[in-house]
Amino acid sequence: MAKLTHFDDSGAAHMVDVSEKPVTSRVAVAKGRVIMNAETRAMIEEGRAKKGDVLAVARLAGIMGAKKTSDLIPLCHPLAISKVSLDLEVTDDGVMIEATVKTTGQTGVEMEALTAVNVAALTVYDMVKAVDKTMQISDVRVVLKDGGKSGRFESE
Amino acid sequence: MAKLTHFDDSGAAHMVDVSEKPVTSRVAVAKGRVIMNAETRAMIEEGRAKKGDVLAVARLAGIMGAKKTSDLIPLCHPLAISKVSLDLEVTDDGVMIEATVKTTGQTGVEMEALTAVNVAALTVYDMVKAVDKTMQISDVRVVLKDGGKSGRFESE
Amino acid sequence: MAKLTHFDDSGAAHMVDVSEKPVTSRVAVAKGRVIMNAETRAMIEEGRAKKGDVLAVARLAGIMGAKKTSDLIPLCHPLAISKVSLDLEVTDDGVMIEATVKTTGQTGVEMEALTAVNVAALTVYDMVKAVDKTMQISDVRVVLKDGGKSGRFESE
Amino acid sequence: MAKLTHFDDSGAAHMVDVSEKPVTSRVAVAKGRVIMNAETRAMIEEGRAKKGDVLAVARLAGIMGAKKTSDLIPLCHPLAISKVSLDLEVTDDGVMIEATVKTTGQTGVEMEALTAVNVAALTVYDMVKAVDKTMQISDVRVVLKDGGKSGRFESE
Amino acid sequence: MAKLTHFDDSGAAHMVDVSEKPVTSRVAVAKGRVIMNAETRAMIEEGRAKKGDVLAVARLAGIMGAKKTSDLIPLCHPLAISKVSLDLEVTDDGVMIEATVKTTGQTGVEMEALTAVNVAALTVYDMVKAVDKTMQISDVRVVLKDGGKSGRFESE
Amino acid sequence: MAKLTHFDDSGAAHMVDVSEKPVTSRVAVAKGRVIMNAETRAMIEEGRAKKGDVLAVARLAGIMGAKKTSDLIPLCHPLAISKVSLDLEVTDDGVMIEATVKTTGQTGVEMEALTAVNVAALTVYDMVKAVDKTMQISDVRVVLKDGGKSGRFESE
Repeated sequence: MAKLTHFDDSGAAHMVDVSEKPVTSRVAVAKGRVIMNAETRAMIEEGRAKKGDVLAVARLAGIMGAKKTSDLIPLCHPLAISKVSLDLEVTDDGVMIEATVKTTGQTGVEMEALTAVNVAALTVYDMVKAVDKTMQISDVRVVLKDGGKSGRFESE
Repeated sequence: MAKLTHFDDSGAAHMVDVSEKPVTSRVAVAKGRVIMNAETRAMIEEGRAKKGDVLAVARLAGIMGAKKTSDLIPLCHPLAISKVSLDLEVTDDGVMIEATVKTTGQTGVEMEALTAVNVAALTVYDMVKAVDKTMQISDVRVVLKDGGKSGRFESE
Repeated sequence: MAKLTHFDDSGAAHMVDVSEKPVTSRVAVAKGRVIMNAETRAMIEEGRAKKGDVLAVARLAGIMGAKKTSDLIPLCHPLAISKVSLDLEVTDDGVMIEATVKTTGQTGVEMEALTAVNVAALTVYDMVKAVDKTMQISDVRVVLKDGGKSGRFESE
Repeated sequence: MAKLTHFDDSGAAHMVDVSEKPVTSRVAVAKGRVIMNAETRAMIEEGRAKKGDVLAVARLAGIMGAKKTSDLIPLCHPLAISKVSLDLEVTDDGVMIEATVKTTGQTGVEMEALTAVNVAALTVYDMVKAVDKTMQISDVRVVLKDGGKSGRFESE
Repeated sequence: MAKLTHFDDSGAAHMVDVSEKPVTSRVAVAKGRVIMNAETRAMIEEGRAKKGDVLAVARLAGIMGAKKTSDLIPLCHPLAISKVSLDLEVTDDGVMIEATVKTTGQTGVEMEALTAVNVAALTVYDMVKAVDKTMQISDVRVVLKDGGKSGRFESE
Repeated sequence: MAKLTHFDDSGAAHMVDVSEKPVTSRVAVAKGRVIMNAETRAMIEEGRAKKGDVLAVARLAGIMGAKKTSDLIPLCHPLAISKVSLDLEVTDDGVMIEATVKTTGQTGVEMEALTAVNVAALTVYDMVKAVDKTMQISDVRVVLKDGGKSGRFESE
């Protein structure tokens, strides 16, 4: 059975030593969605058309959230992110969120991309929770990761 | 159509004025799960039995994450949390996470509970991502909210 | 000559003891502006009309900045802010920023309002700095403070 | 008309991709002042001579503030700052603040220098606000920027 | 044998529920010291007399550190601190540090006082480490705690 | 007499310019202990054997604390840490803590290692303070430092 690298032989959690890993260009893309009812989706679309843009607020929160990843996740290495972008759109059953993060460093950025999606999703939730108490954040996953030793990973 | 309270009449985002709301005891419970394959679940169970407890690390990350909620979500009010607990267990299809948060204050704590679940889920993901690249964080939702003006909300 | 309350008799800086002060409703309003040339102002207006809203990004940054006040200013007390709003508009010579902050607590919120204005101003600066290197942040000041022992202060 | 790089073609805010930019030595100097009345200036000078050094506290706050720049300004890249210094002095009409920041990286440090000046100015304000309610933070600007693709910029 | 309150019956760590505890005035005093050789102590005293005040920098760091306590210590409740002061002096064998913290709340502030002492001690260490590599931070302890259910505790 | 590098000629504190220093691999190890009575030590051992692992919680807090070093210590440079591990064990008179930190950068990591030890020690203290009010954090020191210009330092 494979071994979890975040624990040493005695089972103690540690931040893995990456000091010998090469510095390479890395990218990761994560996706997720906030499932909500039709009326709530309509309110968000309405806001975009006029004023009160829920998706713009969530996009910024996601960008800022990506920068806090190593502060939130105990064993994550701090990283100098070189790009973050988020795409949010209203779909058939809610809001779709996609985040792209890049760095030039010794570890990958999938946790940063996932954190961006999660924080953006929480922010969407926060802004419309008064009108919809049954929303769900779902299907948060990595859809692309490239640039490290383990090679390219792609999914949908 | 209802109005989104996080935007004023001109559409500008703001932190809602809660200064006139009464200080009451409030509680919220949120749930979610990290879906993973059977081998990954077995590794986590294995770790619990021996050493290297993924769930214990994620639990702590969730507790600390709850305290960062107003730092992550732009329009959230800062709150003095009076209790946070997380329950994590390995289930049929992954890890189930449940967070309970309490406060005595002017706004509810469902965002704190949801943030705790999300940060714990990201932490589980981080620790086992080397062995499973297809995990998903799903079904993050509020299952109980009580103590404010809008009354008790319960769901499953 | 009056005495600076942030230093004790020996000259050592300290966080003033407010534990005996009454808990009251407090409000503060601060203002400031980012002075820029006509072309830069036009770009910001253009963005508002179409897409790419500099002022919306700066507004959010100001709200989040207000929540970090006690983290930035060494001798500031941490405070549970109950409301923050920012008003930004393009004027004759740049962007005018006004922030309103409320709390129910033992100290005033003028530092939170000033911090909101400053962080919003820095954010405007950041987003248009590529096209205008001679901008200035100016006239950041308190225009209203009310609710504490020292009574109402109003200015323009 | 030039384009604002912090927005993509659809108008969505993003953190600009700097991963292809060369790593170079960069420096920026920013300046600003806190305008105050004569009595307040005298108190600050008095404090320096004896004990209770407002300028020393503000200097430290500015250095620590520079390190928080990417946490405060949504679209700023995190940077490993290699030097920060602040010079503060009492002048004819208040306190003059100058900050110098250096890095070896892919983006400039003018936002870090401006943030240092602003946080130092807010800290001066905080410490003397009890005796002077009409202070203003003004003329915060970049006076030197060097080391990037856009060449040397100097101003006064 | 007594039970550790930070763990529930199944051994899971949690943030203890204090929502039913009364809000009372609380105070704590902690002490500690940085042990160093005679030459290093002389340099710090020299600095005080002239310029370059190590103790003033450490004092500020301690005050700011107290405000970060609940961010550093996983199971600590966030608290609205109403006063922090630090006393530092050069003694026979190094630097003595004493911190006093007050709050009006549902939990005590001894962790805030201890954190203030520790962060001040680390800051002293940082500033003189180039000339003395054998310093030790020692005897960090609570010397006074009052205001909660468990009554007054005093020690030396 | 040697000079303190954290102050300039006029005595003003600054963050030292390291921009000309070479980027090298660096490591530091720090040690310390929390002294406590026999009953408290027994409770911690008991918890390890069963459930409620004080040392595991403190280990994580220390790892996360190391990442906050430049946020806590005013004149510390921000650093991209590439490894952190902590070893904690119950000894004759309390809990021994040892932290190892690595980076590839322009400054050493002894402050990060010391911060990790201190935050872990504070966390141990927090979790058992209800049963032992006379604990002390002591003998926090650097035992190994290597990789910079000043060469290898080793101690016990």
